[in-house]
Amino acid sequence: MIILCLNCGSSSVKYTIFDWEQKRDLAAGMVERVGTEDSIIIQKAGGKEDFELKRPCHNHREAIKLIMDTLTDKENGVIESSEVITSVGHRIVHGGEKFNKSVVITPQILQEFKDLADMAPLHNPANVMGVEAAQEIMPDIKHMAIMDTAWHQTMPETSFMYALPYEWYTKYGIRKYGFHGTSFLYNAKRAAVLLGKDPFKCNLAICHIGNGASINAVKDGVSFDTSMGLTPQEGLIMGTRAGDFDASIMFHMMKKENLDPDGIYDAINKHSGVLGITGKYTDRRDIEIAAGKGDARCQLSIDMESYRLKKYVGSYAAAVDGLDAIVFTAGVGERGPIMREKVLRGLEYMGVKYDHERNYAAMTKNAESEISAPGSKVKAFVIPTDEEIVFVEDVVALEEGTYDIHTNFKYRFQDKNYRNKLRDEAFIKEVKRKPQLLKAVINLPKGV
Amino acid sequence: MIILCLNCGSSSVKYTIFDWEQKRDLAAGMVERVGTEDSIIIQKAGGKEDFELKRPCHNHREAIKLIMDTLTDKENGVIESSEVITSVGHRIVHGGEKFNKSVVITPQILQEFKDLADMAPLHNPANVMGVEAAQEIMPDIKHMAIMDTAWHQTMPETSFMYALPYEWYTKYGIRKYGFHGTSFLYNAKRAAVLLGKDPFKCNLAICHIGNGASINAVKDGVSFDTSMGLTPQEGLIMGTRAGDFDASIMFHMMKKENLDPDGIYDAINKHSGVLGITGKYTDRRDIEIAAGKGDARCQLSIDMESYRLKKYVGSYAAAVDGLDAIVFTAGVGERGPIMREKVLRGLEYMGVKYDHERNYAAMTKNAESEISAPGSKVKAFVIPTDEEIVFVEDVVALEEGTYDIHTNFKYRFQDKNYRNKLRDEAFIKEVKRKPQLLKAVINLPKGV
Repeated sequence: MIILCLNCGSSSVKYTIFDWEQKRDLAAGMVERVGTEDSIIIQKAGGKEDFELKRPCHNHREAIKLIMDTLTDKENGVIESSEVITSVGHRIVHGGEKFNKSVVITPQILQEFKDLADMAPLHNPANVMGVEAAQEIMPDIKHMAIMDTAWHQTMPETSFMYALPYEWYTKYGIRKYGFHGTSFLYNAKRAAVLLGKDPFKCNLAICHIGNGASINAVKDGVSFDTSMGLTPQEGLIMGTRAGDFDASIMFHMMKKENLDPDGIYDAINKHSGVLGITGKYTDRRDIEIAAGKGDARCQLSIDMESYRLKKYVGSYAAAVDGLDAIVFTAGVGERGPIMREKVLRGLEYMGVKYDHERNYAAMTKNAESEISAPGSKVKAFVIPTDEEIVFVEDVVALEEGTYDIHTNFKYRFQDKNYRNKLRDEAFIKEVKRKPQLLKAVINLPKGV
Repeated sequence: MIILCLNCGSSSVKYTIFDWEQKRDLAAGMVERVGTEDSIIIQKAGGKEDFELKRPCHNHREAIKLIMDTLTDKENGVIESSEVITSVGHRIVHGGEKFNKSVVITPQILQEFKDLADMAPLHNPANVMGVEAAQEIMPDIKHMAIMDTAWHQTMPETSFMYALPYEWYTKYGIRKYGFHGTSFLYNAKRAAVLLGKDPFKCNLAICHIGNGASINAVKDGVSFDTSMGLTPQEGLIMGTRAGDFDASIMFHMMKKENLDPDGIYDAINKHSGVLGITGKYTDRRDIEIAAGKGDARCQLSIDMESYRLKKYVGSYAAAVDGLDAIVFTAGVGERGPIMREKVLRGLEYMGVKYDHERNYAAMTKNAESEISAPGSKVKAFVIPTDEEIVFVEDVVALEEGTYDIHTNFKYRFQDKNYRNKLRDEAFIKEVKRKPQLLKAVINLPKGV
């Protein structure tokens, strides 16, 4: 089976194409600036030079057409024709309350995603456009929906309800949905493997920290609580989103700065977070460099972001009555030892023994690391996230009729011998360059 | 010294009058419905029948005049004339960033409280009116300001800043201030006594749970973080306030219900919290009764309120790198064993050993109780709060010139032999009626 995974944003389409028999990516890429004359595709494929091509894509259909042309290009392509693609997995951000697992998209289900548009106005309409465009181009194969929210549907009412007027929930679906579900699913299952425990006996705090960031409390192997809410605005401090703050500030600032609701929405979603604190950066590496040179607001940003995360880890430890492990994943989670250190130091009271050397050694995307010290009662792991493999396995299982919700389904990557994206080779190269990686890595590939 | 303590709300004035030599309240009362024709004063004084009188009070001046008339009434009064009052302590809710301790009110300081009005529009204007009216009636004595926010001025920047545009802080003072400061100060000092530790070596989570509710992380004896923010809206679930929620919901609901900012402000401040969840109650006792009869939304309200609090306790344990004690205080904190049980169960991972029998025995306003089991590494206490004694001691020390910020000042109630409001007698009566109280009470009065 050859599986195409599509992630359609409002002005971009990201994709990967995966060969299930070979268990590897054939190519991955992105079309940027969809909807303009300046669209560009960038594709990476193993063993080939990176490929770039500018071609106007006025809509998602033209963008997906450009992707198909690039994938099948004589020189730069990786497949002979679009007909070898057996199925398409689409990322759908908001699945509302109805979907607790991935599904084959029917016309009725597509309508339901459309109906959820005003819950996720920045995401669902683009996701739906992508489905419609891809169905038009590839009408004879199955299209599947993999939703960010599905994983979190196990949350109890106590976690997902707000203390707002109850009718807001019954009439408008106002509740906590949570996001980053595919990443949390992958990490929860992998953490259980690393702990050597039954996944349904694991209590975890999984920190998915990228430009967007959220944390997941996992109790007995299922999502129990999470920091993002109705929308991805709530919770941790992010690149440009404020996360938690006193909502009354909005009324105050609407008056003070004479802002309308759209103005204040932009302020808290696009001009806040670490950008708001530092006044200039969203990239945590820029912030670390500037803080190192004495920029006080950049130092404050590092301190605030990690303090907020540390408080959430403590909060979720209480929520699940104690943790087996704390997991760091996604961009900053995987490559941000400063933030990890600031989160883990001082948690001895809950059984965390932080290992400073391991933490600063854990900098590889190609293998999993432990950054707690030997004998730590609560483990700390760095796990490179892999949302794509969840897409692929869901699509394959849906095709084969073996699929079910994760509580009744075992992923291939839950095998204790599974290696992250079969990257043993890449990792061996990396270790030759940076042997200190070995101080933290667990599950070493053969040959190291 | 005879000290009058005044707490002026927008339509009420609460008061107590305290005899410093005798170390006891002479009377306490409240004028309700200030600003209407239906104003009423209710006064309680030891050894006398409760006194009630209706008399229109069109403003705070008339209300304070009614209080003076009642206090000096031949039959129902407790003092001979207003001239015996030596000083007045005024509650000022919002002291902004300038005040970290109580002060004698000068015209300049009064102006500063006026300038802070739009930070606390429901409170400061009424507080200021009360000061002006009392100064007019008692012009020859000192008036002191005791602020809710002063205690929290030790919070580090990392705790008090929001991840919002930085200029909102520098231009408009948008930051976390926190409230309930006098209650937290009293409880922090008393908890140190109960722990038998230097107050500046204690890490605490103090849960002040009444109709309004907030929690304080105390690190090394000073306020380190707190759940209320710029305003009292943020944080825990309260009687009618939502506490934390995804701020984006406000935009969503403004559109859905066609609400303007004032409408949504009312919804989250007056129709949310446990009232929003249950649809009918704010009093937790009503909610417990209804839940006992099978009302699912009342059960949800209990579960949500205690779950939110438990998460905050966990969060603040992480914030201060582990706790010495968890303290429950104020109405629900002192007399809500169900909520306390739901918070404390499951915290073994951080060293809490919950004692079920003690928790359900701890129901007295007249003495302090321990509700953790013998040998618990982290203690759990129930401490009847006493904001008035902080007012009184601050006023006395300001009069005597011995006052300073609490880090340089020792309160009388920090003595290990201090008894809560000298209520030994009341407590002994209570114990005769309910001997089970003794299972939890610590620092027993002599004669029990």
